[in-house]
Amino acid sequence: MSVRTPSPKERRAYSLREIVARFGGEVRGEDSVIVEQVGTLESAQPFHISFCSNPRYQRLLHRTRAGAVIVGRETADLTALPRIVCDDPYTYFARLSAFLNPPVAVGSGVHATASIDPSVQVDASAWIGPQVAIGPGATVGARTVIHAGCSVGENVIVGADCVLHANVSIYHDCVIGDRVILHSGAVVGADGFGIAWDANCWRKIPQIGRVVIADDVEVGANTTIDRGALDDTIIEEGVKLDNQIQIGHNCRIGAHTAIAGCVGIAGSTRIGRQCKIGGSAMIGGHLEIADNVEISGAAAVAKSILKPGTYTALFPLARHQDWLRNASHIRHLDALAGRIRELEARLAEMERNPS
Amino acid sequence: MSVRTPSPKERRAYSLREIVARFGGEVRGEDSVIVEQVGTLESAQPFHISFCSNPRYQRLLHRTRAGAVIVGRETADLTALPRIVCDDPYTYFARLSAFLNPPVAVGSGVHATASIDPSVQVDASAWIGPQVAIGPGATVGARTVIHAGCSVGENVIVGADCVLHANVSIYHDCVIGDRVILHSGAVVGADGFGIAWDANCWRKIPQIGRVVIADDVEVGANTTIDRGALDDTIIEEGVKLDNQIQIGHNCRIGAHTAIAGCVGIAGSTRIGRQCKIGGSAMIGGHLEIADNVEISGAAAVAKSILKPGTYTALFPLARHQDWLRNASHIRHLDALAGRIRELEARLAEMERNPS
Amino acid sequence: MSVRTPSPKERRAYSLREIVARFGGEVRGEDSVIVEQVGTLESAQPFHISFCSNPRYQRLLHRTRAGAVIVGRETADLTALPRIVCDDPYTYFARLSAFLNPPVAVGSGVHATASIDPSVQVDASAWIGPQVAIGPGATVGARTVIHAGCSVGENVIVGADCVLHANVSIYHDCVIGDRVILHSGAVVGADGFGIAWDANCWRKIPQIGRVVIADDVEVGANTTIDRGALDDTIIEEGVKLDNQIQIGHNCRIGAHTAIAGCVGIAGSTRIGRQCKIGGSAMIGGHLEIADNVEISGAAAVAKSILKPGTYTALFPLARHQDWLRNASHIRHLDALAGRIRELEARLAEMERNPS
Repeated sequence: MSVRTPSPKERRAYSLREIVARFGGEVRGEDSVIVEQVGTLESAQPFHISFCSNPRYQRLLHRTRAGAVIVGRETADLTALPRIVCDDPYTYFARLSAFLNPPVAVGSGVHATASIDPSVQVDASAWIGPQVAIGPGATVGARTVIHAGCSVGENVIVGADCVLHANVSIYHDCVIGDRVILHSGAVVGADGFGIAWDANCWRKIPQIGRVVIADDVEVGANTTIDRGALDDTIIEEGVKLDNQIQIGHNCRIGAHTAIAGCVGIAGSTRIGRQCKIGGSAMIGGHLEIADNVEISGAAAVAKSILKPGTYTALFPLARHQDWLRNASHIRHLDALAGRIRELEARLAEMERNPS
Repeated sequence: MSVRTPSPKERRAYSLREIVARFGGEVRGEDSVIVEQVGTLESAQPFHISFCSNPRYQRLLHRTRAGAVIVGRETADLTALPRIVCDDPYTYFARLSAFLNPPVAVGSGVHATASIDPSVQVDASAWIGPQVAIGPGATVGARTVIHAGCSVGENVIVGADCVLHANVSIYHDCVIGDRVILHSGAVVGADGFGIAWDANCWRKIPQIGRVVIADDVEVGANTTIDRGALDDTIIEEGVKLDNQIQIGHNCRIGAHTAIAGCVGIAGSTRIGRQCKIGGSAMIGGHLEIADNVEISGAAAVAKSILKPGTYTALFPLARHQDWLRNASHIRHLDALAGRIRELEARLAEMERNPS
Repeated sequence: MSVRTPSPKERRAYSLREIVARFGGEVRGEDSVIVEQVGTLESAQPFHISFCSNPRYQRLLHRTRAGAVIVGRETADLTALPRIVCDDPYTYFARLSAFLNPPVAVGSGVHATASIDPSVQVDASAWIGPQVAIGPGATVGARTVIHAGCSVGENVIVGADCVLHANVSIYHDCVIGDRVILHSGAVVGADGFGIAWDANCWRKIPQIGRVVIADDVEVGANTTIDRGALDDTIIEEGVKLDNQIQIGHNCRIGAHTAIAGCVGIAGSTRIGRQCKIGGSAMIGGHLEIADNVEISGAAAVAKSILKPGTYTALFPLARHQDWLRNASHIRHLDALAGRIRELEARLAEMERNPS
């Protein structure tokens, strides 16, 4: 596992024929064309293979300099370039990009400046970078890479094939599964926001649960996941968290749910499997979100959502002057509705007694 | 002060009789029952004492495996378990949990990998962890613990009995009181966002104030508090800040105010005492918020609030199709209101001149 | 370049006469008055020069203890204090403050605890602080200061006269221009949120672009800027980013745009030059924002904005009881509008056939 993509010298090249033999799809045009890297339609050069999955970028097909492209069946005839036609160009591109950009090995061992308690168990194939600190009783699995400046607390278990990017902090007793990626500045296991008003000040409630992160989770930069107050906070397998997300104590995020940046989820909320939550959404505490729920960006969720579907709450953007004129009526909507009711009653009365 | 909760071996057990002798309340059922830890109704085992303060969890009282529970007077008869009856079960639980989970000592001294300027004054009872950096002229008080990777700038004063979790950054000249907890990734004293447009570019305004944090404040993970432009940014005693909060330069947060995660407060705003601010709220700059104001989650505050009370601004969540149909009218509310006025005028005219 | 402002001993004092000789403007009152530091109207002492640019603080002119003030022409007669009269008091103050508070040199060299790969090129005039880690192939320019705990990845280029405050993380291959300031906890170059659904789980898409930051950019504390998926994420010259901002992969932020705290910008969005984006705004992905657009705080932007101007989307704050009564109607606006249409039709019918 590595922190970087292969340099040009480390890359290999493949013909379209070799690519469809491995990943399926059908070549149209010259199948001996050789590509070695993926690229955007806009910036690709002849050794790149590009893709087109978003209709808004179709116009770029005509002027791309890519050597080949990946397209869907409905787009197959919009270009004369050598192309791979498949059902889902974006997923095809994702698989191919992963194949062309395998992780680069970073070696194993412990950097001289790392501070590791003698009781820590580090697998011989793991790499512990400079300025890292690992507390007593922790475990680091096979081929895991811990980059500069990370802090791994007492008794933490980090699984195999994980990558902790620079300056990640994991508090005591938390558990990280296999193939987990934690980006820089992520904080796992800080105390939940547990306070009780006691006479004349807030009393802190000890947060004695843990954070347990299952396999194949990715946690974005500066995302924070608080430890449980009593029970654990749980991130199930395959969850993908973008940057700057806050997950409160005792939340449970269901398997394969994807959450975009800047989302806040208050304590004790349970989110189902395969949900998609848009950026800057906010979800209140002690709620239940069903499986397969999609929440639009910037929506605030104050009640449980028990049925799958897409949910939205977006104040329409307007020129400031228009907003000024329209938004003020929101403070009087109840009065407006009352005036409509009254008009209806008066009109009905006139219709009954026309003269 | 410590970074972890006591392990089972370090815990002691107490009878309900001993507990009420110490904390008040009344035992119903067998008062010799022994408990050693707090737990949720859902997960408790017989050596746990649980609690019920939220009506939505009352149904769990019937199937909990806890050895005892803490309940309010109105809930006292909903269970046959040995129980402590009191006025405020949540605060009772908070006190008991703090008693059962005292901080674990971490020792004192300076880790071999810490980098401490010779001019720094570290109390002999403090602990400076691995990979820490402390700049010239700084002071660290008695029993304070500074965990791995923290940076404490030039001339910073950190009081007694503080805990700085891993990878906290404090800029030069800031002042931290006693019993302050700073969670991982918190940044205290970065430059405020002070810029002035000067001909053809932004000119940076030196930020020469400090951040001054009073006693008993807790600052969540990845929360940022900017230093003042000229005067100081001030966090008064007992303030509790959750994760990912941004506090702009020259703000003053009144004593015992609690702010939930992801809140942003722009510069020079003053927030009163004992306010509660919900998650993801946003408060504009140069505002005044009175004491005892409660702001609901996700509300944007653009004007000062001079009277206590609860304030809300939440766009109602809806299924996306319903939102599409309804939200578009917001852009025309002023026209709708005009049509209602016109209908009223025409109807009044008809009522005056019926034929 | 330095991390602190000059101490009183390091400061020099200037007469108003010397100041206007350097910066322009006109003195009214005694021009031999000596000042040595800038201060607010509220807290200034006689050796301070203060300023008044915001009408809401004019009342403080009467009771300030400042030795002198900077005022606009329209305010020139509101005080009898020695004063500098100029066109734009805020910019004047900004220039003067920068002059009175020049950066303090911190010396050069590499701290003994820093970990620097032998292949790194560090200019002899740069300073690398304690606990820093710099990966193979990186370059650090002249007079640049890298504070404690920063991580600079493989092949990163950091220009001249930059300041990286404590605990900044820069991933491999990113490029930082000259005179760039990165505040603590900022993360540059973490993987963008690139995932594709593949059968039964999310597949990660390698993020092979970089982040390229141009000259004179400032990045706030805990702000994150993701690397591009294929092409680069680009921050043009003079951009000012406040704290806790998230910029998604492949965004381009135009020159001299200023973005306030807690803003989230989703991937592939292009923002024009000299825009101003208010705190906690949220901008969706794949959008185009023109030059000179101003977006109000807390607005969510879901469509491209092709014309300059100020745009707003703020749900009006209200007392909670008033909000309850009014907001519920938003879910029925379409029905309300229908009832108005129907009333209009029925009334028109009655007006046509009065009896």
